[in-house]
Amino acid sequence: MAKELTTRAADYSQWYNDLVIKGGLADHSAVRGCMVIKPYGYALWENMQKELDRMFKETGHENAYFPLFVPKSLFEAEEKNAEGFAKECAIVTHYRLKTDPDNKSKLIVDPEAKLEEELIIRPTSEAIIWNTYKGWIQSYRDLPLLINQWANVVRWEMRTRLFLRTAEFLWQEGHTAHATKEEAVEETKKMLDVYATFVEEFMAVPVIKGVKTANERFAGAEDTYCIEALMQDGKALQAGTSHFLGQNFAKAFDVKFSDKNNTLDYVWATSWGVSTRLIGALIMAHSDDQGLIMPPKIAPVQVVIVPVYKGEESKPVIDAKANEIVKQLKALGVSVKYDNNDNSRPGWKFAEYELKGIPVRVALGLRDIENNVVEVARRDTKEKNSISIDGLAPVIVQLLDDIQQNIYNRALAFRNDRITEANSWDEFVQLLDEKGGFISAHWDGTGETEETIKEKTKATIRCIPLNNKHEDGVCILSGKPSTQRVLFARAY
Amino acid sequence: MAKELTTRAADYSQWYNDLVIKGGLADHSAVRGCMVIKPYGYALWENMQKELDRMFKETGHENAYFPLFVPKSLFEAEEKNAEGFAKECAIVTHYRLKTDPDNKSKLIVDPEAKLEEELIIRPTSEAIIWNTYKGWIQSYRDLPLLINQWANVVRWEMRTRLFLRTAEFLWQEGHTAHATKEEAVEETKKMLDVYATFVEEFMAVPVIKGVKTANERFAGAEDTYCIEALMQDGKALQAGTSHFLGQNFAKAFDVKFSDKNNTLDYVWATSWGVSTRLIGALIMAHSDDQGLIMPPKIAPVQVVIVPVYKGEESKPVIDAKANEIVKQLKALGVSVKYDNNDNSRPGWKFAEYELKGIPVRVALGLRDIENNVVEVARRDTKEKNSISIDGLAPVIVQLLDDIQQNIYNRALAFRNDRITEANSWDEFVQLLDEKGGFISAHWDGTGETEETIKEKTKATIRCIPLNNKHEDGVCILSGKPSTQRVLFARAY
Repeated sequence: MAKELTTRAADYSQWYNDLVIKGGLADHSAVRGCMVIKPYGYALWENMQKELDRMFKETGHENAYFPLFVPKSLFEAEEKNAEGFAKECAIVTHYRLKTDPDNKSKLIVDPEAKLEEELIIRPTSEAIIWNTYKGWIQSYRDLPLLINQWANVVRWEMRTRLFLRTAEFLWQEGHTAHATKEEAVEETKKMLDVYATFVEEFMAVPVIKGVKTANERFAGAEDTYCIEALMQDGKALQAGTSHFLGQNFAKAFDVKFSDKNNTLDYVWATSWGVSTRLIGALIMAHSDDQGLIMPPKIAPVQVVIVPVYKGEESKPVIDAKANEIVKQLKALGVSVKYDNNDNSRPGWKFAEYELKGIPVRVALGLRDIENNVVEVARRDTKEKNSISIDGLAPVIVQLLDDIQQNIYNRALAFRNDRITEANSWDEFVQLLDEKGGFISAHWDGTGETEETIKEKTKATIRCIPLNNKHEDGVCILSGKPSTQRVLFARAY
Repeated sequence: MAKELTTRAADYSQWYNDLVIKGGLADHSAVRGCMVIKPYGYALWENMQKELDRMFKETGHENAYFPLFVPKSLFEAEEKNAEGFAKECAIVTHYRLKTDPDNKSKLIVDPEAKLEEELIIRPTSEAIIWNTYKGWIQSYRDLPLLINQWANVVRWEMRTRLFLRTAEFLWQEGHTAHATKEEAVEETKKMLDVYATFVEEFMAVPVIKGVKTANERFAGAEDTYCIEALMQDGKALQAGTSHFLGQNFAKAFDVKFSDKNNTLDYVWATSWGVSTRLIGALIMAHSDDQGLIMPPKIAPVQVVIVPVYKGEESKPVIDAKANEIVKQLKALGVSVKYDNNDNSRPGWKFAEYELKGIPVRVALGLRDIENNVVEVARRDTKEKNSISIDGLAPVIVQLLDDIQQNIYNRALAFRNDRITEANSWDEFVQLLDEKGGFISAHWDGTGETEETIKEKTKATIRCIPLNNKHEDGVCILSGKPSTQRVLFARAY
């Protein structure tokens, strides 16, 4: 092996870190809790962005950009939102450094350059955006306003993990304004569907669509819809959220519109976001003890071709054939890398590309060329086949489709196996500890019970699934009557 | 007119602001010196990004992402760079707010959440990136490292102007590492060429390639190459810079590599960037008193079709024909908008799209359809022609090419007319005050003379043009001998 990896069984959390760092996706940085996204990880993010951006535009949204800073007075305007983020925000207080009079080679904050009003680095942009919308919205003709922003945000988390929870992360945040409640609710659900489609079809990660309980809602929202995925260690991961914000922000920032009858009313709002956290979900949904497994539809490189040289004279022959194959694959829109770097041996390369999760590996030696075949290895099953060079490109295109479908099916089977009903407290606790995954159980609907369950087990209500079937039962903790099951899990 | 615009003659600076704000490109925000980039402006930026990103990738660069924050100790490591930016940087000192004990609805900075080390919001990322490169570079095999980042940066400018100078702006910054000085210099020049090609071919703005004097160099660079453009008021605008950083950052962050002979040496560096400032250059290079003029190659919308209805019954006929034309244009890759919005009249729309600078406007009425023609107006010359609907799409594609070429030629003629030689101090001052533009004059090569000229006239040396011809002469200020002319101008 090129690089030693911890196995999932030995230390799941270390396995995850090994994949991120040794797989070349990201690195720790000199700044507490902030990561460096390396080229391979960023290429993955670019592919994710490209698809999401296309879907946002197809649903009528436009991109814009709002300031990084939120003045404190705006930050605190929507009280619940402010409360929710106040404890974890980076605050700019000064705008100048000066030479340290005690040590000329050092700089200190210039006390004379103190801001009159502190600036919060956006942890989310509702405040600055709704303050701007106030100037943009007067009439029903200005609605709906359908805007998305790709940006960095900062939340001063105490415990950070690469991609999953970092002080700074990249995301997109949609912020829409509507004339009616119905239209805003519809938008909220539509964007949840966009997220679910993206995560399932492109990332090959199955998700459950649901709505959060009041305790788990976004600070300032009336309703938070979410998609929840399951990781291989049985823990859930919230992969995206879409919030119906009611008129909360419109009231906080006094954003009113006049309707066709010239009646003034507050505007209805939604916001929705997914972030680089999705990369963490992707890693933990598919990868194995040999490394990452990239879904072909968003893989930075879909196919790698590795030459197996035998002496100098084999090089031009193999290179020529490889370049032919590269050309044929590119013509079909496949992203392909031909790695004829002399610095490392084929075996090292095989392990490296396995670690990086390239969906298909093609190996090509002199004897293969004589036999008019190549060795094709798929990353998901590690199956290898000798395949004719004639018509190779369309076979590989089909194989990429198969891999995409196979890793989705595998993750779906794993997830479906781990949605288990619990009908008593003991059963609930035992399932959590021994099996993990989602536990479908009755709950009395109170925040107190939910909180107690969380304190006792670290499990939270991940969501009330959309279109949940109603069923009479009793709460697993309180024994009080309940009308439906909800999904509990320990979560990232 | 839909919206009143100030003319260039009346107040150039107000004209510029009117175009930005009334043209829907950007808006002021609640944060001092920070702008909101509106959807139309952001769509323009996306088109610019797309072409630049393609060119960076074609020249072997990969994207990555580094933290927003730079710890003060890293910030001050490269002394000249630190000095250059210390006076204009936003500083994070705290990471938590708390409820104001004197007013429960307000928040205050929690004094107990003071950072041990202050964090500077990146004004540029050399420090954080070279600190990271230290961990990535050991051997010549790790070189060259060719990385670009798309990001927001903050420079606490005291006087700000939309796009031209804002406290926060969007940009890209390339940061490359090389084994030899020659290779790094070559990279610096190559990226300057990429910028020049982009600005001339896509933005249709002619530029002069040159090198900065020591006084005007990027803080921490050995050499700063630049492209300089000329605005319609005769002021120059630096449109992009590419820096040869020598081994300065490698030494500051102790980044060494071992060559093939196992000898250790410091790594050679470059950095290069362009920003949303380019949008300001584009506006001031092409626009007129009726509004913006967008270069077709990066225009968010290339063609707008406006129906001229005559009674309800004309609508389906005109809509059907318009949709046919839309389809034909889209098939040729033209971005087209059909504006059949009922809320405003054709005349209002004509003025609005003129203001927004849409390159081609097609107007379509019942009589036009009867005659199988449309009225096609080009934004650059305001020429209108009646053109046959048969084969309209390829005619429009050709027209878009013509417009692109025409606005470039126009800007080039304007610029070439305003490169004037001055051979005495009086002539120099007179030209600056009466004609503006670039003044080609002899200079004695000293920073003192350069500084004096700047103090007396506000003109700076924009660049020493590449491949400048050598010519003996005497400095216009000091009368000392000089071997070449340099380009002076007042600048943005």
